[in-house]
Amino acid sequence: MSEVDLILRNATVVCMDDAFRIFEVGAVAIRHHSILDVGHEERILKDHASEEVIDCSGKTLIPGLINAHTHAPMTILRGLADDRRLDVWLLGYVMPVEREFVSPEFCLLGAKLACAEMIRSGITCFADMYYFEHAVAEAAAEVGMRAICGQSVLKFPTPDAASFEDAMDAGREFIRQWKDHDLIIPSIAPHAAYTSTLEILRACIDLAVEYDVPLLTHLAETSQEVEDSRDQYDMPVIPWVKKAGLFEAKVLAAHCVHVDEGEIHSLRRVGSGVVHNPSSNMKLASGFAPIYDMLEAGLNVGLGTDGTASNNDLDMFEEMRLAAFLAKGTTGDPTALPARQVFSMATRLGAKACHIDHLVGSIEIGKRADLTLIDLDTLHNLPRFDIDQESIYSRLVYAAKSTDVTDVMVNGRWLMLDRRLQTVEEKPLLEQAQQIADQIDAFLAEREGSVLSKLIAIGGAEQEESYEVQIKLSIPDPSPIIQKLESQAFEIIRTAHYREYDCYFGFSDPTQGRLRHREDEFIDSEGNIYNVRYRLTLAGPAAERTYPNSVLLSRSRFIAPATHSLRFYKEYFQPEETVQISKDRLRWLVLHQDEEFFINIDQILKPKLEGWFLEVKSRTWSRRDAERKAELISDVLKILEVDASKAETQEYPELIATQGMDG
Amino acid sequence: MSEVDLILRNATVVCMDDAFRIFEVGAVAIRHHSILDVGHEERILKDHASEEVIDCSGKTLIPGLINAHTHAPMTILRGLADDRRLDVWLLGYVMPVEREFVSPEFCLLGAKLACAEMIRSGITCFADMYYFEHAVAEAAAEVGMRAICGQSVLKFPTPDAASFEDAMDAGREFIRQWKDHDLIIPSIAPHAAYTSTLEILRACIDLAVEYDVPLLTHLAETSQEVEDSRDQYDMPVIPWVKKAGLFEAKVLAAHCVHVDEGEIHSLRRVGSGVVHNPSSNMKLASGFAPIYDMLEAGLNVGLGTDGTASNNDLDMFEEMRLAAFLAKGTTGDPTALPARQVFSMATRLGAKACHIDHLVGSIEIGKRADLTLIDLDTLHNLPRFDIDQESIYSRLVYAAKSTDVTDVMVNGRWLMLDRRLQTVEEKPLLEQAQQIADQIDAFLAEREGSVLSKLIAIGGAEQEESYEVQIKLSIPDPSPIIQKLESQAFEIIRTAHYREYDCYFGFSDPTQGRLRHREDEFIDSEGNIYNVRYRLTLAGPAAERTYPNSVLLSRSRFIAPATHSLRFYKEYFQPEETVQISKDRLRWLVLHQDEEFFINIDQILKPKLEGWFLEVKSRTWSRRDAERKAELISDVLKILEVDASKAETQEYPELIATQGMDG
Repeated sequence: MSEVDLILRNATVVCMDDAFRIFEVGAVAIRHHSILDVGHEERILKDHASEEVIDCSGKTLIPGLINAHTHAPMTILRGLADDRRLDVWLLGYVMPVEREFVSPEFCLLGAKLACAEMIRSGITCFADMYYFEHAVAEAAAEVGMRAICGQSVLKFPTPDAASFEDAMDAGREFIRQWKDHDLIIPSIAPHAAYTSTLEILRACIDLAVEYDVPLLTHLAETSQEVEDSRDQYDMPVIPWVKKAGLFEAKVLAAHCVHVDEGEIHSLRRVGSGVVHNPSSNMKLASGFAPIYDMLEAGLNVGLGTDGTASNNDLDMFEEMRLAAFLAKGTTGDPTALPARQVFSMATRLGAKACHIDHLVGSIEIGKRADLTLIDLDTLHNLPRFDIDQESIYSRLVYAAKSTDVTDVMVNGRWLMLDRRLQTVEEKPLLEQAQQIADQIDAFLAEREGSVLSKLIAIGGAEQEESYEVQIKLSIPDPSPIIQKLESQAFEIIRTAHYREYDCYFGFSDPTQGRLRHREDEFIDSEGNIYNVRYRLTLAGPAAERTYPNSVLLSRSRFIAPATHSLRFYKEYFQPEETVQISKDRLRWLVLHQDEEFFINIDQILKPKLEGWFLEVKSRTWSRRDAERKAELISDVLKILEVDASKAETQEYPELIATQGMDG
Repeated sequence: MSEVDLILRNATVVCMDDAFRIFEVGAVAIRHHSILDVGHEERILKDHASEEVIDCSGKTLIPGLINAHTHAPMTILRGLADDRRLDVWLLGYVMPVEREFVSPEFCLLGAKLACAEMIRSGITCFADMYYFEHAVAEAAAEVGMRAICGQSVLKFPTPDAASFEDAMDAGREFIRQWKDHDLIIPSIAPHAAYTSTLEILRACIDLAVEYDVPLLTHLAETSQEVEDSRDQYDMPVIPWVKKAGLFEAKVLAAHCVHVDEGEIHSLRRVGSGVVHNPSSNMKLASGFAPIYDMLEAGLNVGLGTDGTASNNDLDMFEEMRLAAFLAKGTTGDPTALPARQVFSMATRLGAKACHIDHLVGSIEIGKRADLTLIDLDTLHNLPRFDIDQESIYSRLVYAAKSTDVTDVMVNGRWLMLDRRLQTVEEKPLLEQAQQIADQIDAFLAEREGSVLSKLIAIGGAEQEESYEVQIKLSIPDPSPIIQKLESQAFEIIRTAHYREYDCYFGFSDPTQGRLRHREDEFIDSEGNIYNVRYRLTLAGPAAERTYPNSVLLSRSRFIAPATHSLRFYKEYFQPEETVQISKDRLRWLVLHQDEEFFINIDQILKPKLEGWFLEVKSRTWSRRDAERKAELISDVLKILEVDASKAETQEYPELIATQGMDG
């Protein structure tokens, strides 16, 4: 007879252990934060004694559900802009709002609200990826939930990092601080292959391996992503990240919607966990993940809600039901993904996918006491059939609702008792969240005339590298430079000849940036036009920093194909002023000390300017990289034997304006 | 200032009228069973007075939801056999259980439970198809819900009708009795094209037109159904039923999963309502209905839960969310089926689909007071954004749960107040349902050795016509009969020559019926085998009725292709006894007085019997038809100039047994 801290008796215990045992009248003995024993009530009460014995009065005891992919602080953005195209939603609403509003306080508040909602839905553990991830960790620790918290890293500037190097530094510090916490598993989260560079991935892999923490990421979520990967790297996403060494880390990959059989087997061999997010994939029309094939192949697939902004709630019962429905619907086989298997995805298999099955995922001796009690004796769950003992999984998946959850325990501590949250008070948090939502409403209303949102609304836009290093010089004669370039002063990657017809739209509010409509005529060696390209580029106001012989600009740049006429865009964007410039451009992409630089020789044709302009330019996602390139530009100019003292700091529209020429 | 019975004030009123008006601080004035006025609270309180004014304290008032397709009594069968193939589920579980258990009491109980669950989910009106539909009507009327109740008609015997003629009689009587009820709209429900005959459809159409009631049916639910229709009628389902005149009635067609663009336009032109059942279609893997195209075409599409046996609950909030998700997922367009449109399917458009939009579907002056109050100020619904006034639809569809519904009114009467049901007590009903469920468990356990369920389990079976009329005669010489047939005494539709190797499996329990494994060799005019067919036929015990010169048999017959060896089937079914019979069969399919008859001339080869046997046979779904054919058999025998006095009443296995021959 052993003394324990707590015995839960008179529950139907669904163990989700190897044998999928179910104890119809079962009990669990808990000591400290762990499960000391589980079995038939009679035996448990004989073998163990406790001052506290709770009668679960016929409720069902299940392992706490694992939400294997979410963005907890986004609860504050729930329903912000539904039924929009992905780029409109993300670039037009979510990212601008995040840039403006996301702070440590925002993340702490949003994560606490998410915890409250998840506890109510029977979730005891979640895997998160967001900004200021330390705030998410604080929220989870304070509320008492288990969480894998991944500090996001992107090549773009983010609300918590001006560059990815800053994000990496913050990630390292975050992991160092939290790595020994009993509830929090800190981790690093390169957002996705398409928002990373090889360098970012490598840095994240090394960090994850160094601290032996999971690496969280999104992989192959959309067909576009896979197509772009093929274009850029000649291979789909999974092989590319594999080649980059990603799977040296313990990876938890969200989505994997667009993966083929070979990639599925590849993911299995490298032991990567995968997270299926059926609501999000359907709501955003990302596609149907081949979950049936993944499970057949023996892959560890967990279930996730994704963020509330693409769901719109954090309800694992909905995800379970939807996962089962979707597998049946897409395979045409109603026996696909039966209830027990999908319940496993939300518990034992999800724990494996998250690389934490030594801790949680089942009700077994030695595992942490992460437990959920659910009342299946409600109107929508009855009557019950017992011909098949497994019908309990069917009730849990096809009929139960998250609101049937009554009690939740994590690490031996009650977080909800009889539907009352024990560690978090919802009301004041909701009031704070509503205040932020009201501010967001006001912000969005004000920005209704935003050029970026209008650009996105008519066809999408892609963000370009944030950092530009450049120098511009007026030169009387381009011949010496051209000779230098032709004499192989640099390794030349590409040369091109364009005629460019630009129209710049300026707006009264300078924070709107400047929109450029460009028609590029591609000229071949015989002077003939062999291609034409129309593009829109929106450049935000730049933060400048001047180096010897170069300027480092940091600004947002969005690029979009221009499929309508210039007249259309003028009417649509209603610019305050327009400036038309056409020029002839000879362009070389050269390599200097392993860095790429564009060298342009421009002749301004309209309005006619005397002479030529030399531009040396480079773009990058990395601030440190930009600084290094700023230095290297001096070398490039020296090799070209150009006098750099007369550098122009203005861009063409300003240059033309100050020279008093008429456009 | 007008005097009204009730004013609901201080609610966000979502009208779902033509203009999709929303009153942020709105009110509704109700007199008797109808909406007398709706508008801004201030104006309503100025224009109307009532002794009873209820403060809805910021809740949202919506039109009561319309569940446009369900089988209410099936709540008692919730979760009976999930994750099974459709034929296994339907033929192996649902239909045998229905045959055994479904009674008026069962239907009354199940429908009351369904009403309770639906009220809790904010549903005020449902369209139902089941057996003993008068019991469903009684339940709805007693609980106070609005319902379109369709008496099912099938060509098979059903729990409430031994033949479709009985079902038609019951349907007519049911419609006559209920047609003036304030809440119940009685209707007729030919189950589906593939379970009807042209005669059944015609009778149902005429009845629906005569009483001006809707006609409920399932159309094009599975691809198999459409394929079979093409095979049988050379056209898909919709054109076939159209040709049969179905759309002379006001049709409400469930599913329409497999319809093409032409059929969609056809459905629109004839004014048919369609019901989308996303949960059911996905769970049973029926396919993805082209809802987006239907709505684009202007079709009236409602939403339904289908029965709990294929869902497993009656939750319109789940159906709304799933419908939106599914449309986005299948079209690849996240803007497809936005929240307002899907909410319309559950209210105003659903009412149109059901042909009851003059009564319900919106909060408008003159419509019935069918209203639902929902609390959107809960954790999983907050915060709220108001940039877009329509974001309330997004909250209702993407985040709200059925458990957020607090109050429900139908026809001016409260059915739920503050989550307490007013007109039905759940607990005793649930206890009764559990008693039935326990009996079903016992029945299924007992029948574990059922030959039919085993037959279905290994590959499915198809039910054949229930009525057989036949006569068998020993004849010394077939030549005169063959001459008669060759001299065109009848119009001959088809002739064939088989060699048949039959093996009959008998079981100790005679109610199991007898299973026949038959190998048919098809013989051509030169005596060569040109085709072989293997089939299993399970014939249940027959109810006999003897007519002059013929016997009318009524029994269940299931037929299945035999894809395994005879040895396999012997081992699998473990028959008590087997009887092997091989024979040579000449077969004519002839027409006599517009009725089809089979004429067989059989020579028993093994065990060898002297002489030949003449069989005249016909099968039908209709009892009346069978009786007519029983009379006509006398004519046929007369034309063949056969002495009918020595008719054999036994079938071949018994015949052989009594003649003492060794098999």
